[in-house]
Amino acid sequence: MQFHLNGFEPGDPRIQPAAPHATSPAEAVPAEVDVLIVGCGPAGLTLAAQLAAFADIRTCIVEQKDGPLVLGQADGIACRTMEMFEAFGFSGRVLQEACWINEVTFWKPDGDQPAHIARHGRVQDTEEGLSEFPHVVLNQARVHDFYLETMRNAPTRLAPHYSRRFVDATVDPAQPGLPVTVRLERTDAAHAGQIETVRARYVVGCDGARSGVRKAIGRQLAGDSANHAWGVMDVLAVTSFPDIRYKAAIQSSQGNMLIIPREGGYLVRLYVEMDKLAQDERVASRNITLESLIESAQRILHPYTLDVKEVPWWSVYEIGQRICDHYDDAGGCADDRVLPRIFIAGDACHTHSPKAGQGMNFSMQDSFNLGWKLAAVLRGQCRPELLRTYSAERQAVAQELIEFDREWAAMFSDRTGAVNPKAFQQYFEQHGRFTAGVGTLYRPSDITGPGTHQHLARGFRIGTRFHSAPVVRACDARPMHLGHVARADGRWRLYAFAGEGNLASPALDGADGLGALCRFLAESPTSPLRRHTPAGQPPDAVFDLRVILQGSHRDVRMDALPPLLLPAKGRLGLRDHEKVFCAMPGEGPDIYTLRGIDRDRGALVVVRPDQYVAHVLPLGDHAALARFFAQFMCDRNV
Amino acid sequence: MQFHLNGFEPGDPRIQPAAPHATSPAEAVPAEVDVLIVGCGPAGLTLAAQLAAFADIRTCIVEQKDGPLVLGQADGIACRTMEMFEAFGFSGRVLQEACWINEVTFWKPDGDQPAHIARHGRVQDTEEGLSEFPHVVLNQARVHDFYLETMRNAPTRLAPHYSRRFVDATVDPAQPGLPVTVRLERTDAAHAGQIETVRARYVVGCDGARSGVRKAIGRQLAGDSANHAWGVMDVLAVTSFPDIRYKAAIQSSQGNMLIIPREGGYLVRLYVEMDKLAQDERVASRNITLESLIESAQRILHPYTLDVKEVPWWSVYEIGQRICDHYDDAGGCADDRVLPRIFIAGDACHTHSPKAGQGMNFSMQDSFNLGWKLAAVLRGQCRPELLRTYSAERQAVAQELIEFDREWAAMFSDRTGAVNPKAFQQYFEQHGRFTAGVGTLYRPSDITGPGTHQHLARGFRIGTRFHSAPVVRACDARPMHLGHVARADGRWRLYAFAGEGNLASPALDGADGLGALCRFLAESPTSPLRRHTPAGQPPDAVFDLRVILQGSHRDVRMDALPPLLLPAKGRLGLRDHEKVFCAMPGEGPDIYTLRGIDRDRGALVVVRPDQYVAHVLPLGDHAALARFFAQFMCDRNV
Repeated sequence: MQFHLNGFEPGDPRIQPAAPHATSPAEAVPAEVDVLIVGCGPAGLTLAAQLAAFADIRTCIVEQKDGPLVLGQADGIACRTMEMFEAFGFSGRVLQEACWINEVTFWKPDGDQPAHIARHGRVQDTEEGLSEFPHVVLNQARVHDFYLETMRNAPTRLAPHYSRRFVDATVDPAQPGLPVTVRLERTDAAHAGQIETVRARYVVGCDGARSGVRKAIGRQLAGDSANHAWGVMDVLAVTSFPDIRYKAAIQSSQGNMLIIPREGGYLVRLYVEMDKLAQDERVASRNITLESLIESAQRILHPYTLDVKEVPWWSVYEIGQRICDHYDDAGGCADDRVLPRIFIAGDACHTHSPKAGQGMNFSMQDSFNLGWKLAAVLRGQCRPELLRTYSAERQAVAQELIEFDREWAAMFSDRTGAVNPKAFQQYFEQHGRFTAGVGTLYRPSDITGPGTHQHLARGFRIGTRFHSAPVVRACDARPMHLGHVARADGRWRLYAFAGEGNLASPALDGADGLGALCRFLAESPTSPLRRHTPAGQPPDAVFDLRVILQGSHRDVRMDALPPLLLPAKGRLGLRDHEKVFCAMPGEGPDIYTLRGIDRDRGALVVVRPDQYVAHVLPLGDHAALARFFAQFMCDRNV
Repeated sequence: MQFHLNGFEPGDPRIQPAAPHATSPAEAVPAEVDVLIVGCGPAGLTLAAQLAAFADIRTCIVEQKDGPLVLGQADGIACRTMEMFEAFGFSGRVLQEACWINEVTFWKPDGDQPAHIARHGRVQDTEEGLSEFPHVVLNQARVHDFYLETMRNAPTRLAPHYSRRFVDATVDPAQPGLPVTVRLERTDAAHAGQIETVRARYVVGCDGARSGVRKAIGRQLAGDSANHAWGVMDVLAVTSFPDIRYKAAIQSSQGNMLIIPREGGYLVRLYVEMDKLAQDERVASRNITLESLIESAQRILHPYTLDVKEVPWWSVYEIGQRICDHYDDAGGCADDRVLPRIFIAGDACHTHSPKAGQGMNFSMQDSFNLGWKLAAVLRGQCRPELLRTYSAERQAVAQELIEFDREWAAMFSDRTGAVNPKAFQQYFEQHGRFTAGVGTLYRPSDITGPGTHQHLARGFRIGTRFHSAPVVRACDARPMHLGHVARADGRWRLYAFAGEGNLASPALDGADGLGALCRFLAESPTSPLRRHTPAGQPPDAVFDLRVILQGSHRDVRMDALPPLLLPAKGRLGLRDHEKVFCAMPGEGPDIYTLRGIDRDRGALVVVRPDQYVAHVLPLGDHAALARFFAQFMCDRNV
């Protein structure tokens, strides 16, 4: 955590200085904004928290409900989501408050007494080394709280406007500055029925499965209709079931159930299989009661007892996987000059079974993908064509998720015996990467390079999220995770892993070495740093170069580093000392081994602002690096 | 973190339900309280945060200044203090925000060029395995902020009354209920000169080196007068000195300096040696200027440059070690029936050189020692004689600190050459435990048992703080630190380490085993749990029994545990599943090895509410356990 750069400031360093135009949450929605976000769910708040960080972007977020969520529906937080929370600065709070899912147990009818269930398997929930974060469970409302706090602390002091119903949106291409006009209806008693009109450069619909924004751009969710009803309830209960604090998948002669322990040590969520539905029948038609849900759970758990003391929340739903074919208003358009102006994210573009714990996580990853792209275009860093990659990337990976989800749900609901318990468990283990949220792979595009040099860093697969590993910071010997230097600040990270012979500075040299890379970046007219960093901004304003050396931090000569690695920043020209890291000494494999870095040649790993690996290049291929960014970035020297 | 015990509650679980008598920070100080704390420094706030947790104790804290501290003077936070912060729930926030001190480097005049300094040594700041927390540096004002937040979130919603000057205190033994009367003078403009009178059962002076409370009980600081002036300044600077982000001890031909990097990555504290003072001369007489401080620092750092850009805070001081012989109003009294009513803590009873980083840390440990004792007496758990142990324990260990501090300061200021750099570094390393705050050892007393059975758990030395180690929680396979089950809640922890043959429940039996211990505690009329736990309270209200097994968590049968290890609690009678732990499987030594637990016989480790080991006993010596607590606890069944 870096602060005091522009002079000592007392108080909480998470509260950043307010931007001149930061406003307290006003009564009226502003008439003109850069981005209007519709909906305060996980997708909307992730986007709002991302955009709130930029003092030069005017963002507004509106919500139909009259205040913050109190009781959430989603609860599972994937490892990948925790990595993103780390970039937003609140992973520690979540770790402290959440329930950690460490192992999953599997139960089936006892061979000798089929009316009884018996444990037949147990696996670690998350494959060893898959992420530095655990899979945790926490009330969605608390995740909202953390985002709202992040927004309040940001320079823009962004806060939602509640009690606003989305009415419609129109795009006027003749108004390129603020082409989208949105009408909102106020729903609070004092202003009921009043219409507010907002003109925006971009509009993002994060307004859920019944999205009004989706309808406004003529998109539809398409996919399976479900034919199985499930009940879900959060309970405070006394039980003799021994695995009540484990995630437990139970297949019994009386139906199936999934147990998810929750935060605080007492609360538990139960997903209970209920009736099979007729074709196109909705679960609402069954009038399923809480009592019948509890009775089903009790039957499934037999011979263990379940004495439910309190049910803070419950619901019934049918499993259904549906998805939009495009996530913006331009996709599929015959005229390929049309650029997207309206986007949808989260449940507005895909819905699926909640049991894989993917809804909230996938929604947040949608808008984390979109956030930095909107910011880069609005701030003049990137060309607006970049925005097309949002739908292209996120629709494709959602399609994959839907397919996974369909298989998983079918397997879970199967009672014919066709799915044997062993197969079920194996499937579960194989798909651990998907449920951990680290299975996402973006295909090659302008912002995802080809795999030509992938062999230089096999463990940083291009198109997947940057998989952090431990290092030691050179300036102060602090052990830390390299990936945690990434903040949700819209910057690109260039991780330059030194090759052999670059062990200790000042021996950083040679044409293919770190010294040459630093000189190129600092001095060459073709350097992306020089071409794409606005005048007057610190050298790391757009590209945050971090260097990793193979030797011990004790051998690094801080006073002999290239100036780019001790950049002068801020009003006082203070030096940033935190650019250089060393592979972990001793104890176990270091980051070069863990991530398959070529120890002779090193590697340059280019990472997007949303933490995905964009490219892997040789340290010395300066031209390829320059070409990559020139594809989608604007030239600031022109 | 456990919550939702009495039903689901939305919102931040750190904000506990308000007690019926919790008040918003009122204008007037209450006329009658259980404890009046004078002074909002680290000692006062630690005590206030501890007492705020008890809804049945009326606490008031007053401060002469007109608001919270903004710019602190102390900054070093010892490992031991971090362990205490963990119990208060804010260690994570401190870890996130603070600067971590990982290594210390040592500099001396270069052999070839004595006008230049050169690095001659480097050590890890904290010995491996000394604590699970690092040594960190953070502005004292932020530590205050975290305590104030803890107080606000506690059931009593405790907040300080500012602008109150302590006038005097009188004790009337004829009024045993509220024997102490304190007069306070308001100092804010609106009420200047108004006198408020507070009657209290106990008063604690945490009012600093010039303590009015200390004077009121006729105590004095006695000790060395200093004869060396030092300057201290927090700077934002640009320097070529390579170790500017390390703690660096510099002995140069131009004088000595200590560098302490600070939070945020840019700020640095410099302790600079200034003039030698005459006998009894005070530093104020020298009119040392900021400019002269900076020039001294620049001379000492030669040949490295130091360009100071901003100085948020600076001061000059003379080194002096002084201490009171008693920390309460009863100590040394001829009549041994007199019980203490007024206490002093922190700088009010001891002052010393700030360079060992001990002032703030030691002060907080003072009042953490006192807090649970006051609470136990006020709540009728313990007899008031317990309060005598505060002065007895804390004065003795402060005396040891003063001696260490004197040697350290002399060594640091030595320029005769008598202290060679190697000896200096060795001394530094040897005293790592002291500076980490884990060197404190309380001598045998009513609350610190004899070492008769110390061999059963060599690593939990009686009288030292409970040294945590990793374990796995049985109910959910969560890896965690055993010591982190300890909250600052005034409860005793009984850590029962199972012997061999107790590997997996239900085989917990035998007269010397865990099963017998659980039965004794739950059922015997002589059980401390039954004798000292008030009727109607949960079984773990006073004694929090935790069990550690040698086997894997996968072998624990949760449904076969003794009922005491799955206690029913709260309004709904929910079961607490978090009482049983297993030694870490595989990877490295387990807690039995790390802490020298007898694997055959096991051990019962009794830990005080302030995290100090009070006793080590065989699991089967139920009578000794009962006798130990009967010495100082009140019988609730009488």
